[in-house]
Amino acid sequence: MYCLLKLASLFVAIAVSHGWLFNDSGKKLNALDEVSLWPLPQKFQSSAVSFQLSANSFQIVHAKDSTAGPSCSLLQNAFRRYFEYIFGEVRKQDKSRTRASKSDLVELQVWISSADPQCDGYPNLKSDESYELSVDQPSAVLKAPTVWGALRGLETFSQLIYEDDYGANNINKTVISDFPRFAHRGVLLDTSRHYLPLKVILANLEAMAINKLNVFHWHIVDDPSFPFLSRTFPDLSQKGAYHPYTHVYTPSDVKMVIEFARMRGIRVIPEFDTPGHTQSWGKGQKDLLTPCYSGSTPSGTFGPVNPILNSTYEFMAQFFKEISTVFPDAYVHLGGDEVDFSCWKSNPDIQRFMEQHSFGTDYRKLESFYIQRLLDIVTTTKKGYMVWQEVFDNGVKLKADTQIHVWKERPQYQDEMARITAAGFNALLSAPWYLNRISYGQDWMNIYKADPKNFTGTDEQKKLVIGGEACLWGEYVDATNLTPRLWPRASAVAERLWSNEKVTDLTNAYERLAQHRCRMVKRGIPAQPLFVGHCRHEYNGP
Amino acid sequence: MYCLLKLASLFVAIAVSHGWLFNDSGKKLNALDEVSLWPLPQKFQSSAVSFQLSANSFQIVHAKDSTAGPSCSLLQNAFRRYFEYIFGEVRKQDKSRTRASKSDLVELQVWISSADPQCDGYPNLKSDESYELSVDQPSAVLKAPTVWGALRGLETFSQLIYEDDYGANNINKTVISDFPRFAHRGVLLDTSRHYLPLKVILANLEAMAINKLNVFHWHIVDDPSFPFLSRTFPDLSQKGAYHPYTHVYTPSDVKMVIEFARMRGIRVIPEFDTPGHTQSWGKGQKDLLTPCYSGSTPSGTFGPVNPILNSTYEFMAQFFKEISTVFPDAYVHLGGDEVDFSCWKSNPDIQRFMEQHSFGTDYRKLESFYIQRLLDIVTTTKKGYMVWQEVFDNGVKLKADTQIHVWKERPQYQDEMARITAAGFNALLSAPWYLNRISYGQDWMNIYKADPKNFTGTDEQKKLVIGGEACLWGEYVDATNLTPRLWPRASAVAERLWSNEKVTDLTNAYERLAQHRCRMVKRGIPAQPLFVGHCRHEYNGP
Repeated sequence: MYCLLKLASLFVAIAVSHGWLFNDSGKKLNALDEVSLWPLPQKFQSSAVSFQLSANSFQIVHAKDSTAGPSCSLLQNAFRRYFEYIFGEVRKQDKSRTRASKSDLVELQVWISSADPQCDGYPNLKSDESYELSVDQPSAVLKAPTVWGALRGLETFSQLIYEDDYGANNINKTVISDFPRFAHRGVLLDTSRHYLPLKVILANLEAMAINKLNVFHWHIVDDPSFPFLSRTFPDLSQKGAYHPYTHVYTPSDVKMVIEFARMRGIRVIPEFDTPGHTQSWGKGQKDLLTPCYSGSTPSGTFGPVNPILNSTYEFMAQFFKEISTVFPDAYVHLGGDEVDFSCWKSNPDIQRFMEQHSFGTDYRKLESFYIQRLLDIVTTTKKGYMVWQEVFDNGVKLKADTQIHVWKERPQYQDEMARITAAGFNALLSAPWYLNRISYGQDWMNIYKADPKNFTGTDEQKKLVIGGEACLWGEYVDATNLTPRLWPRASAVAERLWSNEKVTDLTNAYERLAQHRCRMVKRGIPAQPLFVGHCRHEYNGP
Repeated sequence: MYCLLKLASLFVAIAVSHGWLFNDSGKKLNALDEVSLWPLPQKFQSSAVSFQLSANSFQIVHAKDSTAGPSCSLLQNAFRRYFEYIFGEVRKQDKSRTRASKSDLVELQVWISSADPQCDGYPNLKSDESYELSVDQPSAVLKAPTVWGALRGLETFSQLIYEDDYGANNINKTVISDFPRFAHRGVLLDTSRHYLPLKVILANLEAMAINKLNVFHWHIVDDPSFPFLSRTFPDLSQKGAYHPYTHVYTPSDVKMVIEFARMRGIRVIPEFDTPGHTQSWGKGQKDLLTPCYSGSTPSGTFGPVNPILNSTYEFMAQFFKEISTVFPDAYVHLGGDEVDFSCWKSNPDIQRFMEQHSFGTDYRKLESFYIQRLLDIVTTTKKGYMVWQEVFDNGVKLKADTQIHVWKERPQYQDEMARITAAGFNALLSAPWYLNRISYGQDWMNIYKADPKNFTGTDEQKKLVIGGEACLWGEYVDATNLTPRLWPRASAVAERLWSNEKVTDLTNAYERLAQHRCRMVKRGIPAQPLFVGHCRHEYNGP
């Protein structure tokens, strides 16, 4: 037994360097079936010694010296969640606790070491997600400066547990020291092209936590529909949503999403994209959009936000004031991508305005004019902002802490990352991670190979890269197919953004990811298969 | 009101011929929202007059002169199914039937006109699926020679019903005369690369019936696993399935699939592919596969079925005898695709056999030798057979009623269709319909454009084309993602195989298909969206 497990531990090490964890005949060491950490921790040492966990004797508890205790509901919720992941929801717990056997692991002590554990706070860009995990008898200890690291460590702890042939839960003696490579590790969901029921959003937040992702970029409104219910401007969703009751997110829905995310260490950054992508805004807000002209008369259609009216900026000031209170995160995404100038060009009032401001025929100057005023407005709400790369490309004057979001694959997104960081701005990569794009075969591999720091630049520049996001635009996805299309493909992004940059072996990643997806399936997330095979616990829904 | 509906009726007729049913502004006549027949009937006339249907007064009944009555459980089941589709499952029916109002439609009479309604039979290649439907007051009448046509007509009737703005069920005065263009309209599911729970198979049979598809091609076993539980050779699944209990189809599972399919007018044709694609067979049946050699010694791996041993043919005789009793359909699919000769070539016993039979080095002759003996065996079980195109390409002698299944896209699958039919064989198209292949965007359009008769050949040749199948191979699909990936993409195949060959307008098809997919969603099938938009009744699962 000792020998086998020693081999098992070697196996992980060798697998990483020589890539023989997966082989065609499908033979694997049983004991390791479930020990597939994803994303891979920064430092990981496992031994041959193993312990058993029993639902009747095992407990997750607050360490004696922890600054957090049972009143920390974020941790209490996490304890419950991970206890259920490990032992299943329906398992009966015997009232009379059975005596633990000699080889049992009886507790995991969670030890928050900072004076402020941040139980009631929101995660932010600077949150410390590091943790140290030691699994040994009589207790395993998870030490983290804050609850955010504890959440990541609980996930890792749960991933260390594997079922033996008798269905018993085992865990090996292990020491882990872990922290994320990038601070911003996100998923974008688009709730405008198709409305996504709350249930789907929450399920994906759950999956994000399992993958240690920490930013939900909520592309909440866009041209096709405006499902965000604004208290200040209720007509926006009343008239701009697909349906005013069934296809909107009420203030309490939004609160629930934010709290569900917070409990999992996930930030919620809403995107209100302007001045383009705003067709749906026009339905509930008169004079907000630019009337397009056909010759000398209005054509009846509308273009981007009208940048020449004071009423536009009054609206934006009120609107973003509300947004700043609804969403606690320090950042808001302001979009700014793909502004189509043709409508502005057709409008005689806009033409006159261009002349008055000596913009010539450079409509990028008009766009910058709008964006700069918008940024000033948002600055007064004490929020930082993220913008799509065009805002930078078009030379808009930006605050130093602005985050530029790179989404264009061509030409060379690497060059754009270099330009942005050379100009001293924070950069965020999504270009190779547009997961709405699909192709036949194992496309997770190309997703996995992309790296946000893979561009020519100085160390200083590289430090300005804060992370990236997997984007699932909504043209072709709704509640029927979103979750399996996103997972485990977004898991590939998750490991790239969390693990050491040297973790790149595809063969090893395949094996771990195949088992990680089975783990997601076991936890109720219908993550699609990577390739031929099966899971011990298959998907039973819908 | 009358005027609007008159326009509505014109609208359908014009839409079909001029394709303006869908327009960019998304404006539609409300009343027609749900009247999107799919696949489009052969002859269709609708009037402006509309009737209402109430769950309290409407009934589906056997016509006075029908040869079928309440003892026809296939029809009784169908009546219940369609009543529930129309009114919802949970609707309470008032004990005291309310009096129908003047504008109500109170019944649909189902009139089976043949002496033998085929209530207890199985559908087959020659089944008459034609029907005539007349919707008028006081009764709608659905007349069909057999229950198979009645099933198709019930689906059409249910598709004619639309919700008005008050949620009431309406139907327009209509006359339809309908029949399928092709007799064989199938879907292939692969339960070997991933095991599919019964629930998933049944859900897809349900979706097939909604699309008037009538053949479930069950690619039940293949290299990766053997989930079919054979009573004669239980070791095949005991050792060859992913798991001997959780990942097998027991005899009663298979019976349930066949009966569920029969109730919907769907044939179940199993495929037992040999001599290639048989790795999983070897685990439970000694000496069935060819031992491969490395130089002069066996390498420990195995190749295709061993064609030189008498024991192979004794096994096949027993095995296919069982298959012939388990599956009632007159056809069985024998595979015969992608035989890799390298293992045969390596084996000295096979080399000797080749010499003895003067096959030279043409291993296609050995393949033909095997297949011909297999066909003789299957012939003794009184079954007809389907085979993949290689069997024809390799010159195997075939019975006149053999159905050749075209799957290779290149070179020109059209030429293969021409060759097969020129040789006098029935042909079946799948090459452009490998729905496991995915790409970004609206790929249903290319699926829709393909036509089995689009090749150069005589009228006689064209008559030999019996239909086609949408194939969803299992490398990348399991219960987590299969259904949304298949639907509504397989619906495009369904219309191509049922409707008139002139029904090809993409704009019109888009509009109907988008609404047809919403209908599937409403009926509980998680069919994925075609593009941006929403359904009145969205998907609520899983």
